[in-house]
Amino acid sequence: MSQSAAVPSNNRPYEELPPIIAALFEAKARKGLTFDDVAKAIGRDEIWVAAAFYGQAKLAPDELEALARVLDIPSANIQSQIGSHWWPNRGLGPMPPTDPVLYRLYESVLVYGHAIKAVIHEKFGDGIMSMIDCKVNVTKKPDPKGDRVVLTFDGKFLPYAKW
Amino acid sequence: MSQSAAVPSNNRPYEELPPIIAALFEAKARKGLTFDDVAKAIGRDEIWVAAAFYGQAKLAPDELEALARVLDIPSANIQSQIGSHWWPNRGLGPMPPTDPVLYRLYESVLVYGHAIKAVIHEKFGDGIMSMIDCKVNVTKKPDPKGDRVVLTFDGKFLPYAKW
Amino acid sequence: MSQSAAVPSNNRPYEELPPIIAALFEAKARKGLTFDDVAKAIGRDEIWVAAAFYGQAKLAPDELEALARVLDIPSANIQSQIGSHWWPNRGLGPMPPTDPVLYRLYESVLVYGHAIKAVIHEKFGDGIMSMIDCKVNVTKKPDPKGDRVVLTFDGKFLPYAKW
Amino acid sequence: MSQSAAVPSNNRPYEELPPIIAALFEAKARKGLTFDDVAKAIGRDEIWVAAAFYGQAKLAPDELEALARVLDIPSANIQSQIGSHWWPNRGLGPMPPTDPVLYRLYESVLVYGHAIKAVIHEKFGDGIMSMIDCKVNVTKKPDPKGDRVVLTFDGKFLPYAKW
Amino acid sequence: MSQSAAVPSNNRPYEELPPIIAALFEAKARKGLTFDDVAKAIGRDEIWVAAAFYGQAKLAPDELEALARVLDIPSANIQSQIGSHWWPNRGLGPMPPTDPVLYRLYESVLVYGHAIKAVIHEKFGDGIMSMIDCKVNVTKKPDPKGDRVVLTFDGKFLPYAKW
Amino acid sequence: MSQSAAVPSNNRPYEELPPIIAALFEAKARKGLTFDDVAKAIGRDEIWVAAAFYGQAKLAPDELEALARVLDIPSANIQSQIGSHWWPNRGLGPMPPTDPVLYRLYESVLVYGHAIKAVIHEKFGDGIMSMIDCKVNVTKKPDPKGDRVVLTFDGKFLPYAKW
Amino acid sequence: MSQSAAVPSNNRPYEELPPIIAALFEAKARKGLTFDDVAKAIGRDEIWVAAAFYGQAKLAPDELEALARVLDIPSANIQSQIGSHWWPNRGLGPMPPTDPVLYRLYESVLVYGHAIKAVIHEKFGDGIMSMIDCKVNVTKKPDPKGDRVVLTFDGKFLPYAKW
Amino acid sequence: MSQSAAVPSNNRPYEELPPIIAALFEAKARKGLTFDDVAKAIGRDEIWVAAAFYGQAKLAPDELEALARVLDIPSANIQSQIGSHWWPNRGLGPMPPTDPVLYRLYESVLVYGHAIKAVIHEKFGDGIMSMIDCKVNVTKKPDPKGDRVVLTFDGKFLPYAKW
Amino acid sequence: MSQSAAVPSNNRPYEELPPIIAALFEAKARKGLTFDDVAKAIGRDEIWVAAAFYGQAKLAPDELEALARVLDIPSANIQSQIGSHWWPNRGLGPMPPTDPVLYRLYESVLVYGHAIKAVIHEKFGDGIMSMIDCKVNVTKKPDPKGDRVVLTFDGKFLPYAKW
Amino acid sequence: MSQSAAVPSNNRPYEELPPIIAALFEAKARKGLTFDDVAKAIGRDEIWVAAAFYGQAKLAPDELEALARVLDIPSANIQSQIGSHWWPNRGLGPMPPTDPVLYRLYESVLVYGHAIKAVIHEKFGDGIMSMIDCKVNVTKKPDPKGDRVVLTFDGKFLPYAKW
Repeated sequence: MSQSAAVPSNNRPYEELPPIIAALFEAKARKGLTFDDVAKAIGRDEIWVAAAFYGQAKLAPDELEALARVLDIPSANIQSQIGSHWWPNRGLGPMPPTDPVLYRLYESVLVYGHAIKAVIHEKFGDGIMSMIDCKVNVTKKPDPKGDRVVLTFDGKFLPYAKW
Repeated sequence: MSQSAAVPSNNRPYEELPPIIAALFEAKARKGLTFDDVAKAIGRDEIWVAAAFYGQAKLAPDELEALARVLDIPSANIQSQIGSHWWPNRGLGPMPPTDPVLYRLYESVLVYGHAIKAVIHEKFGDGIMSMIDCKVNVTKKPDPKGDRVVLTFDGKFLPYAKW
Repeated sequence: MSQSAAVPSNNRPYEELPPIIAALFEAKARKGLTFDDVAKAIGRDEIWVAAAFYGQAKLAPDELEALARVLDIPSANIQSQIGSHWWPNRGLGPMPPTDPVLYRLYESVLVYGHAIKAVIHEKFGDGIMSMIDCKVNVTKKPDPKGDRVVLTFDGKFLPYAKW
Repeated sequence: MSQSAAVPSNNRPYEELPPIIAALFEAKARKGLTFDDVAKAIGRDEIWVAAAFYGQAKLAPDELEALARVLDIPSANIQSQIGSHWWPNRGLGPMPPTDPVLYRLYESVLVYGHAIKAVIHEKFGDGIMSMIDCKVNVTKKPDPKGDRVVLTFDGKFLPYAKW
Repeated sequence: MSQSAAVPSNNRPYEELPPIIAALFEAKARKGLTFDDVAKAIGRDEIWVAAAFYGQAKLAPDELEALARVLDIPSANIQSQIGSHWWPNRGLGPMPPTDPVLYRLYESVLVYGHAIKAVIHEKFGDGIMSMIDCKVNVTKKPDPKGDRVVLTFDGKFLPYAKW
Repeated sequence: MSQSAAVPSNNRPYEELPPIIAALFEAKARKGLTFDDVAKAIGRDEIWVAAAFYGQAKLAPDELEALARVLDIPSANIQSQIGSHWWPNRGLGPMPPTDPVLYRLYESVLVYGHAIKAVIHEKFGDGIMSMIDCKVNVTKKPDPKGDRVVLTFDGKFLPYAKW
Repeated sequence: MSQSAAVPSNNRPYEELPPIIAALFEAKARKGLTFDDVAKAIGRDEIWVAAAFYGQAKLAPDELEALARVLDIPSANIQSQIGSHWWPNRGLGPMPPTDPVLYRLYESVLVYGHAIKAVIHEKFGDGIMSMIDCKVNVTKKPDPKGDRVVLTFDGKFLPYAKW
Repeated sequence: MSQSAAVPSNNRPYEELPPIIAALFEAKARKGLTFDDVAKAIGRDEIWVAAAFYGQAKLAPDELEALARVLDIPSANIQSQIGSHWWPNRGLGPMPPTDPVLYRLYESVLVYGHAIKAVIHEKFGDGIMSMIDCKVNVTKKPDPKGDRVVLTFDGKFLPYAKW
Repeated sequence: MSQSAAVPSNNRPYEELPPIIAALFEAKARKGLTFDDVAKAIGRDEIWVAAAFYGQAKLAPDELEALARVLDIPSANIQSQIGSHWWPNRGLGPMPPTDPVLYRLYESVLVYGHAIKAVIHEKFGDGIMSMIDCKVNVTKKPDPKGDRVVLTFDGKFLPYAKW
Repeated sequence: MSQSAAVPSNNRPYEELPPIIAALFEAKARKGLTFDDVAKAIGRDEIWVAAAFYGQAKLAPDELEALARVLDIPSANIQSQIGSHWWPNRGLGPMPPTDPVLYRLYESVLVYGHAIKAVIHEKFGDGIMSMIDCKVNVTKKPDPKGDRVVLTFDGKFLPYAKW
């Protein structure tokens, strides 16, 4: 595909992000690439790459280069905005989320949060699942009654320090 | 184990729940059972059972019976409070959560929510991952650099109706 | 059915309501009545009666009598709490709602509110759909792909006064 | 009608939406079309089309073409902004709503929400009315005492998963 | 009338007020008095008296005596709670209000507040309408198309000090 | 008067309103007209006209014409922005209001809201004072101890529907 | 004076304070003492003493003794609750305040805060007026046009550290 | 002093104020004037003038003239923006304030508000200290242990109306 | 010291904690122990022990035993409430904090948070300072100009996972 | 390093700061300087300098000169925006913070705030740790199990005034 694609930078969540972000999305759409396509090109996973597209992860210099190549954007343009001097200011969008896809994730905390906490304590003791050393994954599980989204968080258990 | 265990019903989150809930937790602690032990006794998964313990799921009559048996609580006590006339009023605790275990789940929405939404749309189209027809799972993955928590949401994709 | 049923008055939303409210729910459960059964006994619709059970509508003296009869509760007990001196203090529960059933209604305002407003203006002009002179209805529409809930609001259009 | 019509893109709710949205509203006004006129032209219902106008639904490629034709807007302009690469970021406006039309819908949740939830549970069991697989409809019911707005939500019942 | 009337002190807004407040409401209901009846007995206006019933105004010693007489409550009971040592802690209920009667008043500020401010400035200059030296009045204006509520605020204009 | 007058459209509350709104205020100031002058010219009351100036009421085509004439603004400019295709998105400014004039109105709800509700119920029964079919009025009452603002709401009583 | 005086400990702001606080207020009222009377008896200023009555300041052991004497309360009762082991958890009541007396203080920050900040910087440089090393004073200034409240904050200027 | 001084109009709190406000601050800085210098030139007090600079007070025509002269700004520029057609929309900045100077004032309400209220009632009766008829003053009190800021509010006592 | 000490369990923050917490504080006060005394008795640091006293850390069985001994409280009482079945629900008190000691810590995030983040990134790269594997310390540094509080957080740097 | 570096001034937190701030960051990145490099050049500590970069501290005239030199920015450009007429409006970003680095600092108040307060009182008495006379420091402590961030606040203890 090579249609024109505009991403309005005054719209949520682009308004909170560097202008190059909208350009990344526009190039990806113009070239008809999926996040997985981009991810393969730079040697990362699709969710991590999607997070980077939303300014929620920091690309290394070589990843920025690979990104520029796969999207056909001058590398200097990307480097100058989200290069080594730039650090993600993480956290996007209003909370509670108003978008139903995001709200359902939020609802999982409201409904299953205490159960998850209780089972983590039972299995690991006093501590948390890290959201820093955590890998996130979305896969499609075909199902005759309706395909299923399998969303996985694989995070290191961090025991509470005592001193 | 058979030590005495008190769960203060004026504490979060018990204060928002029927009094029998504290009694369930006390019985479980007194008998030294894990959620998995209880789950096996009533034929369900541990996270679902933990959710039910926090008043976030509805037990069927036979599940209530099995629960009474495994916890040695008179069935009538449980039935009278969370029996067939009772429906969960789901959603527990303050948001944003103040507890670090719960907050990290909330943070996953802040940091990875848009990436997850984008990949779901890419793989499934316009719609959401259901949090109603969704199974939640926590497993322990041993790792020499520190064990990992693997948290999985397996939810049906629901395409948006058009009319 | 005549099982014992307890409705904890310190739980949401009962904690915000007169104590007799919990007693009404307990009696209804003990006698195994649906809202429709109660509604027929007092000559009203089930949603209106359910609203009255949650302290969101005002029962007339004869309705209070009929309610006392069908629930086998002394009329004086009901009259003394929600009798003629009592006026509903409407509005229940936290907003945004945490319960998924209630949240979906709230989400309908987020997602379809502007569309509904635009079409009301197009069909009726400048004004609102009254939520005071409004009848609310829930019916079950069987469907082989899954039964459907049909929720209807039938409210008077009120044009904006000009002066 | 063919008067000039301006929709200020820095006003609520247009400021949160792609710029083409204001252009759609302006074209619709300029051509004197109702949502129903547009809906018939693209083979959809008026509320769904109004939702799409507010960026709350995703138009398929052929619907975008039909929309471009009926509004006399170059198809490429629409495609480039809300084409296949665009996904709705649903949820519009402040909550609680300040506009009286929208507030009355919000008030319906405050006043009748618990009653609706209770009757849904009584008729369907533990689960929710889907707001994803849900059709919304507004009709005008003439009434000598004042015309009435009939607002209907026809949503699939989704039973809670147990596992 | 002399029926029994209970006002649950754990209900809004009584939970925020001295316990004697509920007793005042119960006595008024038991004796079948209107606020106007009570107002005449103590030499004040009905809205002011209603405000005092809700703990929003301070009764003078002789007014407390008259109140005790008309309600048949021992004067000492009233004096000990809302006597000379007691000062109103004004401001009742959640904001925005959830009750539709209260919300409509709140909505008047949202919709007509700026217009009222602009006309006050035009007629009086820079300053405010006092809500301290302000008399509030509610009267019923019969109207064949539906009776009307006439609500009047008569407040002193206070010009802004300059120094 | 014919001085130049600028109304900054990026200031509260103009920033939330169509750009023509600032032009209306500027023309009114330039011509030295009061709201009452404008109101007489278009056959309406001053508060209603002030509300329309703040985008809180919808002017009919002939009122827009009259407004254009009295303000010496090309009619097409006004029609194109707040003409027949435009519907007020009511509700202005932050709540609680920070401006003292507006806050005092808000405070009236906090302090006298429950008293007003109680007397409305006593005089009219279960229902509300409409803020849709409501006329608002501000007059100046001379008083040797300081002139007084008399603010009146004359709204239709709407009884709660029962069904 | 020696009338009975009850201070309901479930009322704002007493509900947030140790139970002895209500007893202090009741004793003060019963004995007909002003804060100034109490202040003289313990060798402090009235505002400081009033702050201590509201749990916002810490009394030294000898001040607690003097307080017990002047109020005729057993010293041990006071010591056991607000003795040397107790530290004020400062900050009382909702913000924004709903009570008009408190709200006017809050409004002074909204309206004059920036002016005060600007003049402090102009006169003192970069730093703040301490609210820890600050003395607060309320005096009555008779005025034929209406007595005036003179409220003074005398706080140490703290220059910002640079390092 | 006559250095160049820029006040960014997109910064707090200038973004909420008419553009001329930034120009006033820039001129004052360029000419090296204090608020007291400006105040003397227009015959007012420095805090009142600082409040006017922040758009929190209304300058009379002659004050605007004097201001234009002392700042060397064309009078018409000032008149056209904050002239007779302009009324302050009072209330600046976020609450709670994030700036430490402003926060300390806010903290005074949290910590000493109830004490101030109690002493006002004790000395004056039921009523408030006006923030409309109130003069605010900041002086520097030299002190060997560190200079002190003396901040004074001199406001008229307003007794509550009874009717 | 062995005076009586009462800690009201309905006061902040005790109301959110198990009842045994108030008993721990009372015993500590009665025996005149500092947190450091208790810490030495159970082999931990004073801040960690203070955190445990506020229900923000989990004591191991032997620590609970040692705590019971040093406070002279039956071990079973402590075990039954905060024994092995209990897990901290961390996060105490309102935010923003109203108490000035706590607020100053909060203010450090407002004022120095971005500087701290920037320097952490500069020295460590993309990641965070763990608040789970973090030791907190408060020491007193004597200073002739006024003693100083030295508060130290020693937390593990956690680099962001990439995958 | 001398690459081009752009800091988008419409991004958090730059959007709240004077435009020169983005230029400072861009120059620092372009020249490849650390905060410590800049700090040494102007004779201050790196955290203080980083705070100044974020508009949270006020540079003296000679510091502004030194800053201009080390960054190769015309001194007049810096002086005109953050020169002597400029005072920091402290407090940056949303609270609670959404960025995980900032949130962990915020979490330290939630989890350890009460413990810190209790130990400060125990060691110093009634008062606070100043956040005005406070030096903040971040150092890297190498550790084979993972380097550690040592964050220190060294603030003057301020005893509460009594008067």
